[in-house]
Parts: sequence; C-alpha cells; structure tokens
Amino acid sequence: MRTAILTVGTEILFGQVVNTNAAYLSQELNHMGYDVMYHYTVGDNPERLLETIELAFRDCDLILTTGGLGPTQDDLTKEVICQAMDDYLVVNETCLADLKAYMMKMNRTITENNYKQANMPSRAVVLPNDAGTAPGFLLEKDGKRIIAMPGPPREMTRMFEKQVKPILAAHQDSVISYRILRAFGLGESRMETELLPLINVQTDPTIATYAKEGECSLRIASKRATQQEAEAAVDDMIEKVDALIGDYIYSHDNEELVQVVGRLLLEKNITISCCESCTGGLFAGALTQVPGISDVFNRGIVTYTNQAKVDELGVSADTIENYGAVSQETAAEMASGLYRITGSDICISITGVAGPEPSEGKPVGLVYIGMTWQGATTVQKVQMRNVNREWNRHYAVLSMLHEVYRRIIM
Amino acid sequence: MRTAILTVGTEILFGQVVNTNAAYLSQELNHMGYDVMYHYTVGDNPERLLETIELAFRDCDLILTTGGLGPTQDDLTKEVICQAMDDYLVVNETCLADLKAYMMKMNRTITENNYKQANMPSRAVVLPNDAGTAPGFLLEKDGKRIIAMPGPPREMTRMFEKQVKPILAAHQDSVISYRILRAFGLGESRMETELLPLINVQTDPTIATYAKEGECSLRIASKRATQQEAEAAVDDMIEKVDALIGDYIYSHDNEELVQVVGRLLLEKNITISCCESCTGGLFAGALTQVPGISDVFNRGIVTYTNQAKVDELGVSADTIENYGAVSQETAAEMASGLYRITGSDICISITGVAGPEPSEGKPVGLVYIGMTWQGATTVQKVQMRNVNREWNRHYAVLSMLHEVYRRIIM
Repeated sequence: MRTAILTVGTEILFGQVVNTNAAYLSQELNHMGYDVMYHYTVGDNPERLLETIELAFRDCDLILTTGGLGPTQDDLTKEVICQAMDDYLVVNETCLADLKAYMMKMNRTITENNYKQANMPSRAVVLPNDAGTAPGFLLEKDGKRIIAMPGPPREMTRMFEKQVKPILAAHQDSVISYRILRAFGLGESRMETELLPLINVQTDPTIATYAKEGECSLRIASKRATQQEAEAAVDDMIEKVDALIGDYIYSHDNEELVQVVGRLLLEKNITISCCESCTGGLFAGALTQVPGISDVFNRGIVTYTNQAKVDELGVSADTIENYGAVSQETAAEMASGLYRITGSDICISITGVAGPEPSEGKPVGLVYIGMTWQGATTVQKVQMRNVNREWNRHYAVLSMLHEVYRRIIM
Repeated sequence: MRTAILTVGTEILFGQVVNTNAAYLSQELNHMGYDVMYHYTVGDNPERLLETIELAFRDCDLILTTGGLGPTQDDLTKEVICQAMDDYLVVNETCLADLKAYMMKMNRTITENNYKQANMPSRAVVLPNDAGTAPGFLLEKDGKRIIAMPGPPREMTRMFEKQVKPILAAHQDSVISYRILRAFGLGESRMETELLPLINVQTDPTIATYAKEGECSLRIASKRATQQEAEAAVDDMIEKVDALIGDYIYSHDNEELVQVVGRLLLEKNITISCCESCTGGLFAGALTQVPGISDVFNRGIVTYTNQAKVDELGVSADTIENYGAVSQETAAEMASGLYRITGSDICISITGVAGPEPSEGKPVGLVYIGMTWQGATTVQKVQMRNVNREWNRHYAVLSMLHEVYRRIIM
C-alpha cells in the first residue's frame, strides 16, 4: 500500500530536532511490506498542513502523521485532519477518563488546555497513549486512511508497536523480506559495476547499493506472497552476489565491522593488543565499543611521539632516524615490541600521516599497519584518499579492523 | 526567503538512514535568516521527484536538494532538475578534468558510469566537490532557484560550508549576525530556566537553546540594518548571558570542547598524558583530533583489564581488590602511576562503568576521573545519566575534557 509519512512540527524545520520518527516508521512500514513513497515535514501551520494532506492523498492511500497532538495553541493536527476528512471534533469520554487517570497517576493537575487532548474526530478509532497525554487515532474516508500519532519518539514508538502495527498487519497485502550486506575495500561505483550482471536483470529481489563513511552496503529485498518465499528469494540472490564480490563482504546481516571483529575475537578467544600513532587511540576506542571485549582486549598504547615509541615499545631510535616514524620498519618494530610486552595473540600497530599536512615528506593518507600474529610480523601499506583528518583517521581504523578480520577468518 | 529542503534517496524512505542532512541544512538556513517551510523526501523516482519540485515552487523560491548525484543508474536528480527548469545536460569540461584528477589522485580507475558525473545542466553554476566525485550546482529560472548537493553528509556539509553559504549570504535581504555559545555541565531545560529573564523579553537579539550529545548550545542572533549594529547587539546580549550562566560556557564561538582544550594546552605548553579504562582510548582519540597536538600530548595508555592497570601503571593489586577497579582509589593510583612514568604536567585517568551491565555492584554511568597536576592528585566522581554504552562513553570523554579545561583556565 502506498504510504506517506507526514511530520508536523516547527522544531524539525528549525533543525533543532532530527526527524528520527520518519526513519523509524519507514523501517517498520517497509518491513511489513508497505511502500513508503514520501516523507513530508510541515510546521504548525493549518493551511500548509491541509494542503500537504491533500497532496499526499493524490498518490497514497495511507498517511501516518506524527506531532501536533499536544495541548498548546499551535497543536492543530486534529483540527486539520477533520477538515481534510470531513469530520468534526467531539469530547471523547474514554479519552477524558484516561486523561484524568493519567494526570492523577503523575500527580499533575489538569490545565485548561489539557482538555483539548480529549477531543477526537467523531468517526475516529482512538489509539490510547499510555506514555503521555495525547491519544492518537485512525480516521478513514472513501478508502483513504490517516493514522495520527504524537510527536515525542518514546510515545510514538510505543503507540506504533502496541496499537498501530496490529492494524497495519491486518491490512497488509504482501510480505517483504530483506537483508543488508556490508563490504569494505571497494567503492560504491566499483561495487555496482561488479554487480551489473545481476542489477541489469533485477525484478525481484531488488538490489540497491549504498555508500557509508568508507564502507559500502547492499540491500537485497524481495516481496512475495509469503515470508518463506521472500526469504528464499533473498538467500538465493545473496549467493549470486557472494560469487561476484564475496571477498569484500564481511557481514550478511548489516553488522558493523567492529562488531564482527569483536564477536570473532571473543568466539575464537583470540587476545589482542594495539599500539597507535596516527589514530591516537581510536582503534582501541572502537574495539571497546563491544561489550565484554575486556576478555580478549589486553592493552592499548598510544605512542604519539617518537620518544613514546622508543620508551613504550622499544622501537629503535635508529630505525626512526633512518626510515622515519611513518615507515614499514617502524610499524614492524611497534608490533613486535608490543608482542614482547603483552604476548597477545594479535599485536597490531599503526603509524601514518593523518593530515592536514604531509609529514617526513610522506603524503597525507599514507599509513603502515603492522601485525604480529602466530610468530610472524607483517606490514600492510595503505594509501588512502585524503579527505580530511577526521575521515582519514576513521578510514585508518576501518583498515586496521579489516586487517584483523582478514587474518582471523582464514 | 521561503525555502524547501528536498531529500532524494530511497534509503531514507526505507528508514536505513536518518535524514540528518535536512536537520543540518535547516539549522544553517535558519541561522542565515532563511525561512524553511517544508522538508520533502522522495525516492529515486523521476516522476515523483519532478512533481515534488513543481509543488515546492508553488510556495517557495528556493529549493535545496541533497542526493541522487552519484554515478549509478538510479541517480537521476540532475536529469529531473533539467526537466523542471527547462535545461539540458552537457559535458562540463571543468568537471570532467576535476573528476579525472580526483580519480588519479585516489589511484582509482574511472568506470563508465563515473563519466555521468561530469554532466551538468547547460546554465548551471557548478559547485565543485573536493571530497567526492559528484559536483553540485545552482540552477535558476524565472527567479526560482535550485541548489543541488550530493547526499553523503560529509560531502554535503563541506560543499554547503565552502560554496553554498557564500551564495546564500549574497542573496540575503537583511543582515543577520549571530554567535553560538557552547556550555557543558547543565541540561537544556536548566539552561532555559536560568535564562528565562532574558528569553521572556527577547525581541532582538533572539536567544535559542539547543541540546547536542551531552552539550548545550545557545544561539544569539540579531537582524539589523547593518552588520555593525547586529554584531553590537549580539555582543551586548552575550554579556548578559555570561552574567547568568558564564561558569558553564567554554566557548563564545561554537568551538568544540576538544578544540578549546587542545588550543589552550598548546598555547600554554602544558604537556598531558592519559590512561583510560571505560573510555578505552576515546579520550586520546579525541585529543589527537587536534592538529599539532603531538607537541604536548605525550602518552596514552588503555588499561582495560585489571592486570593492565597493575602492569602498566603500577596500581596496587590490593587497591583493586579492596576498593574495586571502579573506585576513587584506583583512579588516583592510575593518575599518579602515569605521572611517575611520563612526568607530564597533566596526567589524567578514568575508570567507570560504561554499561550496558553494572559492574562490581556499581551503577552504569558512574565514573571516576583522576588527575595529577602540580604535584597533587585529585579525583572527581561523576554519576552520569545512563543513556547507552556509546553515549555514556562519549559523555565520559567530555567530562574528562572539561576537567582539563577547568584546571588550565584557572
């Protein structure tokens, strides 16, 4: 069913609040097989709201609104929806009783404007709100439906989960299943090029590619009569994708690289320590996002200066002098020095030029990643594109994580 | 000027990506005195995109679009904008040369679909993209203007900041001057309450408060006939704000806390080392965002396990046994141990419970921040609200930075 999500609220147009409601509802609706065609956001303005509802109904049969159900003067969603759907507001006795009970429970006195919240369109199916004072509702006219929910995300998601989802499930006409694959090491356009044989003939499942902060992801979706059919079609397509770009894919379930690496380290009980120069602690910071990682994450050392590399890791001053701090030789001595200290299964090091300026005559974006693993120390040289200091450091951390990933899945 | 923000991208309608671009642009446009009337999101569908552009122009004179400028087949924003504005695409030689140079610099080969990105509407003012392969553009027809930017937030914000802002500033019909103050240590509603005497009587300058990831900011704006008048009015209001909540404010120029701290450490040549438990390297990672910080940032150590605290920092095993790893005593020994090793002017430590589960019977969100400074070691206890592991660690880093800030401004 063609659906629009309509957010009402001046705070969104001011940019004070990011519209997470629209993202949440879109995801939920898509999971249920509804087609979200538009997001609209308008301020607390009755004319523009009415116009937008009429517009959305030209192309859609269902509108979900959030916001504008509060007690204040600028909360006008209900009034405008009545106008659009040829209805009028009446005091709803159930809502009024709920409101009084809620306010008593919260030890708050009902203000005059609160009473407004017990008014409902006369034909509405009321959706009670057990987390706030504004009930939602469903209103239908000539096969077009509006579902109105409050704006605060906590109230809205609760109402959606408990009241709206069962209603939508009953009206569903097909089932969608999808999975998101994540890849590292190839750009979005390269990925699409590799997948063209599949993309060019796609009908169902559909394949969509996305770029995201140095990584790529791929959404494979199928819409079928039953969940089983849809899932089987998606699995079948994943096999074909794996045959083309499987080497780059590290997750079939939209997992972040750091989560995959953390999970594998824990599952295989592989201990790890790290020493960082250009990333300055961000690799350790990323890895310690993973709850429980302390079982395998032994030591992190930030050796930002040359002296620290010598003192903490036993890198030879001659090596730094002869080859520079940003060199294959220094990266190797950092990793093997760390191994001498910690004895961790994996000892990973990084040294590089994060920018904005080149260093030691070496270009921004050049990093060396050293690793001691099973008795051997190896070094990877990575020349990243230089975006900016922040991105370069982020990408360097991803490169380190991917280096760990490659080793432990072998 | 009445403005609409139009986001193009099926991934937004799928709810895979939260539309932070619209929030960012709204905030920036409002700051510049533009009126944002609508947000629209449509998928990669030419008919609906065209219809939405026409619709937005009924009520607005300016549309900012993001997304759909990529190299792939479903990137159709340029084609549709041409249709809406009566123009056609031509190969833009400058864009083509930029693209080739960019791909060469990145060591990537140009794929066939990349060439598409060098096509531009014939009348377009091109907006170069130095962070990616998709240039943006401005196109005008009969007083209506569209500014098209790429979708990835990093590319978009960069292009907006460097190219679009100056264009918008030139088309502004009155002069707005504003400054953004940043505060740490008080919530948004508390800040608003403290400022009510000013907010209640505000006409010009206006005061708006924003909450952002554990910090608060305050925008003071004035719209006057001349830049000088507007600036003077803003400065005058800043004095009044400082009189009320000056203790919490660390920047009058929208500087991030880490940048302020980094600048002060460098200016005063104060050396610093850190050892981290619950933040796992994020403090070091944050501090090393600051270019040139290696002049004063000596050593970072991530002692995530108890053994690491003993081995690396000489924390007594008895202390951990008797008081726990998350304790005032351990935080103090971590900081003083770090001082013995490094001799840095400031040695800061942190130990705490990031969550999701309590640890040692101590609540999630409890952290101890130790600091050795001018011969004395002190410990601050901070009980944060528990949001989630990621937020808790972020807030813990801010607390450490603020602790450093408080000392060095004394």
